[in-house]
Amino acid sequence: MAPRNAMQRTSDVRQKLRDEVNLWMASASSEGDAYLVPLSFYWDGARLTLATLANSRTARNLRRAGEARLALAPTNDVVIIEGLVTFIARNVIDDALATAHAQKAGFNPRQIAEEYVYIQVIPQMIQAWRGPDELNGRFVMRDGRWLADDGENGDATDPIAAIPADQSA
Amino acid sequence: MAPRNAMQRTSDVRQKLRDEVNLWMASASSEGDAYLVPLSFYWDGARLTLATLANSRTARNLRRAGEARLALAPTNDVVIIEGLVTFIARNVIDDALATAHAQKAGFNPRQIAEEYVYIQVIPQMIQAWRGPDELNGRFVMRDGRWLADDGENGDATDPIAAIPADQSA
Repeated sequence: MAPRNAMQRTSDVRQKLRDEVNLWMASASSEGDAYLVPLSFYWDGARLTLATLANSRTARNLRRAGEARLALAPTNDVVIIEGLVTFIARNVIDDALATAHAQKAGFNPRQIAEEYVYIQVIPQMIQAWRGPDELNGRFVMRDGRWLADDGENGDATDPIAAIPADQSA
Repeated sequence: MAPRNAMQRTSDVRQKLRDEVNLWMASASSEGDAYLVPLSFYWDGARLTLATLANSRTARNLRRAGEARLALAPTNDVVIIEGLVTFIARNVIDDALATAHAQKAGFNPRQIAEEYVYIQVIPQMIQAWRGPDELNGRFVMRDGRWLADDGENGDATDPIAAIPADQSA
């Protein structure tokens, strides 16, 4: 399909502003701690109206910043992850990992003229919910540990999971 | 449908980590400027691997912070909005606007015991794209103006759009 022209994109964005119920709101503290939550909103043609707890982290961050950055996307199947970040230069990343990433992502950062860098996130906390009735029990990982394990340990059978051991050799 | 139990959520999260191609990555500068971009990723069972320009805003923010907050959701129809934020206490918000918000959001912040606050975002910049071939021309709004207008001025027919004038009366 051909790229949409400006008129079509504008029309689609307005449609999405009318139809979507939720958005992703990013915010940050004065100390530079980033935050990200799903919020429902209403679009009246000029403004998005949202509501959150008056003293919530998002409210405090936005009150201070006075400006917002948010994204529209279906949020009826929320997964939020917090993790530790490490960087890997593209000339030293494990070949199998880089190949697996390129196949998944649809582009190969090692073959691009501009200098790309790999970022790894090791999850420490994961929440998952599909609607208010699932807010209870939304933590599926804390302190880097899956709180429930299906016993099949499916991820470990992924060949890439063996990479850390290989790299330490 | 009943809320999923911990085992099911864990299994679903792992499935989503395997199946989804993109995520929303929030980050912030040391000055507390929040940022939010879609990035493709690869999950190896323990780590999310992403790649971005080595000197991109996200890379600089994450390098400094050392930790990330991100969300999984389909991102094949990206809309990113930056806007100005204002707050409205729930006892002074316009009735029609509050009602419209409640109908869209599925909850009424004015009827909740905890103190909610309304937040309005007036878009200043909007980008919209569905894949790399649409990165060109992704800006549909700059400086608060729709760059292309369909001439139908559809939003203005929304009854709520008349509220600013009403409130100034």
